Amino acid sequence: MEARTPKNSLTIMTEIVLPNDTNTFGNLMGGRLMYWMDIAAALAAMKHCNAPVVTASVDNISFENPIKLGNVVHIEAYITRAFTSSMEIHLKVWGEDLTQQYKYKSNEAYYTFVALDPNRKPRQVPPVVTETDEEKKLFDGALRRRQLRLILGGKMKPDDAVELKALFFKD
Amino acid sequence: MEARTPKNSLTIMTEIVLPNDTNTFGNLMGGRLMYWMDIAAALAAMKHCNAPVVTASVDNISFENPIKLGNVVHIEAYITRAFTSSMEIHLKVWGEDLTQQYKYKSNEAYYTFVALDPNRKPRQVPPVVTETDEEKKLFDGALRRRQLRLILGGKMKPDDAVELKALFFKD
Amino acid sequence: MEARTPKNSLTIMTEIVLPNDTNTFGNLMGGRLMYWMDIAAALAAMKHCNAPVVTASVDNISFENPIKLGNVVHIEAYITRAFTSSMEIHLKVWGEDLTQQYKYKSNEAYYTFVALDPNRKPRQVPPVVTETDEEKKLFDGALRRRQLRLILGGKMKPDDAVELKALFFKD
Amino acid sequence: MEARTPKNSLTIMTEIVLPNDTNTFGNLMGGRLMYWMDIAAALAAMKHCNAPVVTASVDNISFENPIKLGNVVHIEAYITRAFTSSMEIHLKVWGEDLTQQYKYKSNEAYYTFVALDPNRKPRQVPPVVTETDEEKKLFDGALRRRQLRLILGGKMKPDDAVELKALFFKD
Amino acid sequence: MEARTPKNSLTIMTEIVLPNDTNTFGNLMGGRLMYWMDIAAALAAMKHCNAPVVTASVDNISFENPIKLGNVVHIEAYITRAFTSSMEIHLKVWGEDLTQQYKYKSNEAYYTFVALDPNRKPRQVPPVVTETDEEKKLFDGALRRRQLRLILGGKMKPDDAVELKALFFKD
Amino acid sequence: MEARTPKNSLTIMTEIVLPNDTNTFGNLMGGRLMYWMDIAAALAAMKHCNAPVVTASVDNISFENPIKLGNVVHIEAYITRAFTSSMEIHLKVWGEDLTQQYKYKSNEAYYTFVALDPNRKPRQVPPVVTETDEEKKLFDGALRRRQLRLILGGKMKPDDAVELKALFFKD
Repeated sequence: MEARTPKNSLTIMTEIVLPNDTNTFGNLMGGRLMYWMDIAAALAAMKHCNAPVVTASVDNISFENPIKLGNVVHIEAYITRAFTSSMEIHLKVWGEDLTQQYKYKSNEAYYTFVALDPNRKPRQVPPVVTETDEEKKLFDGALRRRQLRLILGGKMKPDDAVELKALFFKD
Repeated sequence: MEARTPKNSLTIMTEIVLPNDTNTFGNLMGGRLMYWMDIAAALAAMKHCNAPVVTASVDNISFENPIKLGNVVHIEAYITRAFTSSMEIHLKVWGEDLTQQYKYKSNEAYYTFVALDPNRKPRQVPPVVTETDEEKKLFDGALRRRQLRLILGGKMKPDDAVELKALFFKD
Repeated sequence: MEARTPKNSLTIMTEIVLPNDTNTFGNLMGGRLMYWMDIAAALAAMKHCNAPVVTASVDNISFENPIKLGNVVHIEAYITRAFTSSMEIHLKVWGEDLTQQYKYKSNEAYYTFVALDPNRKPRQVPPVVTETDEEKKLFDGALRRRQLRLILGGKMKPDDAVELKALFFKD
Repeated sequence: MEARTPKNSLTIMTEIVLPNDTNTFGNLMGGRLMYWMDIAAALAAMKHCNAPVVTASVDNISFENPIKLGNVVHIEAYITRAFTSSMEIHLKVWGEDLTQQYKYKSNEAYYTFVALDPNRKPRQVPPVVTETDEEKKLFDGALRRRQLRLILGGKMKPDDAVELKALFFKD
Repeated sequence: MEARTPKNSLTIMTEIVLPNDTNTFGNLMGGRLMYWMDIAAALAAMKHCNAPVVTASVDNISFENPIKLGNVVHIEAYITRAFTSSMEIHLKVWGEDLTQQYKYKSNEAYYTFVALDPNRKPRQVPPVVTETDEEKKLFDGALRRRQLRLILGGKMKPDDAVELKALFFKD
Repeated sequence: MEARTPKNSLTIMTEIVLPNDTNTFGNLMGGRLMYWMDIAAALAAMKHCNAPVVTASVDNISFENPIKLGNVVHIEAYITRAFTSSMEIHLKVWGEDLTQQYKYKSNEAYYTFVALDPNRKPRQVPPVVTETDEEKKLFDGALRRRQLRLILGGKMKPDDAVELKALFFKD
């Protein structure tokens, strides 16, 4: 399978915050945002592998600024790295108040998807070949994030997570 | 402020998977589930502190089994520990096929909420007092999970995360 | 078929009132509430019979207190009695203002469901065996409510409704 | 206040059954139908009194035929009688398969609404003056149905329900 | 195929403007209204031809008055003319404030649908026979509107649009 | 007011077709698509003028290819030209089947918006300055499309539409 660039999978989603998306403060609910992010990330994964995908996991998400009623939600998603049948997707989310020309960060996140064949079994996906420095950095970090996911999921012993260990306790 | 038990915040949510909640395999989309989990967890947090809350962060979630169209989604949420103005909520999610009497785990997760006063500033919440062994275990683990959140959010140096370090690399 | 308890069918649903669920007074619309009640009751019926079910009828519902925007809706549903292929489900609905710690009754209701086999024909369901006094009372009343349903549906003559008559005009 | 005809309040609603409105049999869920009926009936009540209204109660509804995915739902609603500040609305509901030119009854129902003034207190509504035989029949029956509602709600003793008694046990 | 009247296809739809249908001014969004109009018009087309239909085109729509939150939307749709397998549907849309007894025009529009056979190929539809002056006028105008559609779609040369030309530049 | 480029207003929206967006053929309903297009176009207009906007009109839309369930909808919108307080937005819509790597055109459209001040009166918007040949062509055509809109809305006599006339009947 031929390697593909992160750029090939780039997905841009734009949404507007409507009343039913908000809590009593008139701010976008976290769960509604994670729903949109899941769809944007799934589309990026499908662009990379041209197969149906299912959400396997979501990494720690920290919400920095509330997005308000009537504001715009910008989501950008692309693949960082592929592991056999799984793909890590990086998302950046901004809010924007168009009348005040004010743009602000909401969060960054990583969603992981698995590609499935018609029998719903995992199928191999193309590897990722990076082009820019940011893509390279995300590609390298994917290994550590994967180790953390495996440890948190009870599928790897912390002492085996060499890259993660190096990051956490050596710099 | 008087301490409150996790049981006091227990929230039980039951939903059914409808066509628009599913992907092309007829399975519940991860994002739709995270939306329901966010509401269940927010209600548990509000029960604990009797104030409006906003989602601050979501820990790593790993989806173990797909929940199918027409199946039932069971969500149980309660508080594990409070830190000044923030509350960690633990969620357990199961799917159930009622015609086949088959119940299966979807995932476990931790959502963190912050309580707000009428000026939208963080306000103090009651501490948590545990009653059962499971609650005690979740209470103790909350410190380590908080350290991991702070490290992942760039707000704590790994070497300062004493409890997390002890868990990851000493057993 | 072995008898089952009402407790076995207990379904707890928790929802939050969002903007689109409300009328111009900011109160939950009756129709939206009946929609949630229908799903909660259908799940209780399916838990009892482990088969697909369809709504056959809904008894008189009287709405006592409006549930406000941002408040919580609590629905509890369980079976009261089974009649060959039909099941009567009892629902209790409360509203709750979590910030003011104020809980109030919305309504009580009875929904009736019919279990279907794969050819969409009615199929037999297990009988109900009661355990508590409340369950016993609901079980006994189910006969009178059924007679009223049959009379209102034009399927029984009032004079044949012995139990209903006794209740209405003898005490 | 000048009396108004039922015709003045006539509300016709037409909807199509979409995937998310259906159960696993591909039939319209009873709760979704009651939601549409609530809106149609509320509009008929508002047309009669030109004031905001809230749903006070719903009488026994019996669903006769399932309405299928892709079929049309026809709802007709108009007022039968007014009692000081409350209005009884009669609804007729049909399904229709437009490709097979097949129209079938789903149910008939009565919803009761209360008109509110700007302080959310009940306010008086115009009386109803009937024009046709069917309207006259519905007007007369409204008294009996109201007595049954009051008895079922515990607000009237069965022996005081003279009209209802006459209907139930004398013919 | 026997000709059918426009009246035979008449579809009346009534909706209420809920919070999620509105923009930041509390007015119904144009796109939400076009969604309802599409369904009303599709039902009118299906009533005429008793076959499934797909939206082929929508003519220029000009929105005259905003419809407000809580107001009622009235849509009336019926066929004006059929062209082999396509049908032009005329829609009239009003808003209404029921508490102020104020009814106002929103827009008039023309949607065109194509009837499909089970293989998704266009199928012939019955011709239209008009009964009233308004229907006759709409029937005649349909030819000019069709020419304009074909020109705008690049499928007809302006000079061949005899009827359109006559309308545009001769009166 | 300083002129702005079309590029400055570019809005990219990506959606996935879910079951409730489809007709009985499993194709995206035209009305649902026009809803998304209205939001994308409104965002482009707001980016241009940094003020709230309302939909004034929609030009003739012709749907070329159906977009299928599970396929992706790509919408690109940017401003073509401003007229005092109104803005014409051009939209291009594609469908895409990601598993088959097949991308197809759905339609092109023009939506017109008016910018409003806080009193809901039209307010002036910045002029448009074009940079590319395609932008220039769209800018020039905007005048003719505006004349057609005015004629169709009964606000201009055909003989006064000099540019439109030249286009229609001279080439």
